[in-house]
Amino acid sequence: MNLDLDEVLKALSHPVRRDMLTWLKEPEKYFVEQDHPFEIGVCAGKFDQRSGLSQSTVSAHLATLQRAGLVTSRKVGQWNFFKRDEAAIAEFLRRLHEEL
Amino acid sequence: MNLDLDEVLKALSHPVRRDMLTWLKEPEKYFVEQDHPFEIGVCAGKFDQRSGLSQSTVSAHLATLQRAGLVTSRKVGQWNFFKRDEAAIAEFLRRLHEEL
Repeated sequence: MNLDLDEVLKALSHPVRRDMLTWLKEPEKYFVEQDHPFEIGVCAGKFDQRSGLSQSTVSAHLATLQRAGLVTSRKVGQWNFFKRDEAAIAEFLRRLHEEL
Repeated sequence: MNLDLDEVLKALSHPVRRDMLTWLKEPEKYFVEQDHPFEIGVCAGKFDQRSGLSQSTVSAHLATLQRAGLVTSRKVGQWNFFKRDEAAIAEFLRRLHEEL
């Protein structure tokens, strides 16, 4: 797995982005129901509702998480659905432990 | 312990600052001998030699690590000596694990 530790740490240094990862851990708890099952991911629009932030701000945060490799996305029709990349998150924690 | 997770993550997102923490783990291995024992910390000037960076750049990196709570410093005469704050680093890792 080719994580860039600098990029992951920067991505995690914003509290909203850490919140987003927390929400993605338990979508049923943090998001209102969506048409597609949460198994395929959480629709970007749900984050706007949940965070109260603008669509463009939310998009930028999700893009940062995705570039860092912490989430994956999947397009269904015109919508983007996001999921945590658990393997990447575990690998990041392992490497950080090792480095520190 | 009152760690600001945002600040710690930002401090760690620069590779030189992570290197500095690594060097502080084993001062005998990474730094040439200094007049004062490494137990009181590593003199700021040692980081200039080791990193090849300017004194002001090194000072700024050390200050960032200190503000984040990852290192402590102690003044002896005109010199500042730096040590890892192991309790803070452990607490940071614990909280990050918990959040992620």
